[in-house]
Amino acid sequence: MVELEQQGSVLVVAGTHGNELNGPWLLDHWQRHPGSLARHGLALELVVGNPEARAAGRRYLDHDLNRSFEPTLLADPSRREREVERARQLLARHGPGGERPALVAIDLHSTTAAMGNCLVVYGRRPADLALAAAVQARLGLPIYLHEGDARQRGYLAERWPCGLVVEVGPVPQGVVRAAVARQTQLALEAGLALLAAAREGRLPQPRPLVVHRHLLSLDLPRHPDGEAAATLHPLRQDRDWRPMVAGDPLFLDADGGTIAYTPPAALDPADREGPVWPVFINEAAYGEKGIALSLTRREVWPVQPHWGRALERLARQLRPA
Amino acid sequence: MVELEQQGSVLVVAGTHGNELNGPWLLDHWQRHPGSLARHGLALELVVGNPEARAAGRRYLDHDLNRSFEPTLLADPSRREREVERARQLLARHGPGGERPALVAIDLHSTTAAMGNCLVVYGRRPADLALAAAVQARLGLPIYLHEGDARQRGYLAERWPCGLVVEVGPVPQGVVRAAVARQTQLALEAGLALLAAAREGRLPQPRPLVVHRHLLSLDLPRHPDGEAAATLHPLRQDRDWRPMVAGDPLFLDADGGTIAYTPPAALDPADREGPVWPVFINEAAYGEKGIALSLTRREVWPVQPHWGRALERLARQLRPA
Repeated sequence: MVELEQQGSVLVVAGTHGNELNGPWLLDHWQRHPGSLARHGLALELVVGNPEARAAGRRYLDHDLNRSFEPTLLADPSRREREVERARQLLARHGPGGERPALVAIDLHSTTAAMGNCLVVYGRRPADLALAAAVQARLGLPIYLHEGDARQRGYLAERWPCGLVVEVGPVPQGVVRAAVARQTQLALEAGLALLAAAREGRLPQPRPLVVHRHLLSLDLPRHPDGEAAATLHPLRQDRDWRPMVAGDPLFLDADGGTIAYTPPAALDPADREGPVWPVFINEAAYGEKGIALSLTRREVWPVQPHWGRALERLARQLRPA
Repeated sequence: MVELEQQGSVLVVAGTHGNELNGPWLLDHWQRHPGSLARHGLALELVVGNPEARAAGRRYLDHDLNRSFEPTLLADPSRREREVERARQLLARHGPGGERPALVAIDLHSTTAAMGNCLVVYGRRPADLALAAAVQARLGLPIYLHEGDARQRGYLAERWPCGLVVEVGPVPQGVVRAAVARQTQLALEAGLALLAAAREGRLPQPRPLVVHRHLLSLDLPRHPDGEAAATLHPLRQDRDWRPMVAGDPLFLDADGGTIAYTPPAALDPADREGPVWPVFINEAAYGEKGIALSLTRREVWPVQPHWGRALERLARQLRPA
């Protein structure tokens, strides 16, 4: 049977946020030494997401690029922020219907939070879950399933038929750390190896998948004038992915008083019982978004056979290098 | 004898760099609860150094405020950068001859480098050395003696008769960490307590003072096009204040090759022998300045009696709260 569908490459994006330097550091190396990613045999497009913000050493100039990929925003001709224009340009060039189409997007990020090496998946698309499950089986990485968050949307990875974020921390903004770059490279290489396997119909799929499903985000306690009235508690700082139950220390006020975790009323009753698993604890860039940490629920899901079939179907369209 | 000299306060500056948030977090608390610094009985001026940069979440807008206090720069009417104007404003308001004069400036900074809680002293002014020696005797803090650096000058603390920087890390830019804020407060309180003692002629002075004297700064290895060709070596990252000798791992190139420390030819022959002590290893803000780390020499100095007399003479002019 002749495949009539459009072929495409794997898009590797680094520097979607201009002050996250570990991905761009790797990308610069790969461009100088293309051999280091070539072994997987897949055609790649290596792109700096936001070169203008990178030159300025800032996360973004006008609007967070990784919140600029919302279809209604992209379609609104009155929105001319530099990042919205850049999102349109990336889609025109490398989108699934673009000039040099890509079918999979892997977006390399770093965080000031102690997230370790992990994956972020947006929603429950079968191909995303299949790829994340395979990477988790190979490297053991935790997966943050970001969904149902009306305040946070428009992520780059969502606009390609399959897309993941590789998120590594802790590392300050503006800093390259050798170990963080190495972890990023390991996660990307695992992803490429597994896409190559899927292309040949040999995608390994584990039986269970462990996800940390987004519940909601919490802001710092604040004074009436909006200024922060507390910091993260030292016993919670750097404890991403660790369970937290009602009564555990969460914030510390400026007088040294502990503010304990109280399950928010906005949580579903089932999620108010038992532990939650915080992620992105004290991420620098989320202060402006009013997020001190996000709460997740750890869940073990059976891997569905149709996920792997969806990814293999897509991967057959990947162009060889 | 009647004191005829001008009285003044202690100026406490936080947020000289707009993306260093731990000092401003404390300052906001002290302004809400003035009692927490009042026990030392000294008149204080609490000032956010660069409020515009703080609002923008950036180190500075036009020019590093903490390199804007050079007399020739301040005197040049053609220099209208926002930070140069702000430096003039701070001096007009709180300079030793200003509207509300201060005689001592304590400038609260944070760093992404693993510097711990430390002091930075600029040059060898007797009053600065006396105060630093007394704080070191009380809290054990290391002291970075910054001098003889033609590329780095114009620091705020130099423009007051006595001035120190309290520098605490590691903490990412844009992040408040409870432990970093606490360390900052401890150093400031020690400084205020010792200034109060000096005002009463009871400044305790240790016999020896340990300083880490600035030698020179090193940039990352670079490709001919100027892009970085290596990162800090994982065995050197986070090892501020630890000795380094010729042959020790210093950088790691993108292929995983180690680049060892070779004493630079620019060092004095005496400093090429034996260890150097790196500081500010991989500080985010110094990338743009071409500084990957600075080398110091650890020295033990006898404390000179005239240092303490100089500080006590100055401290007698400090206004009570």
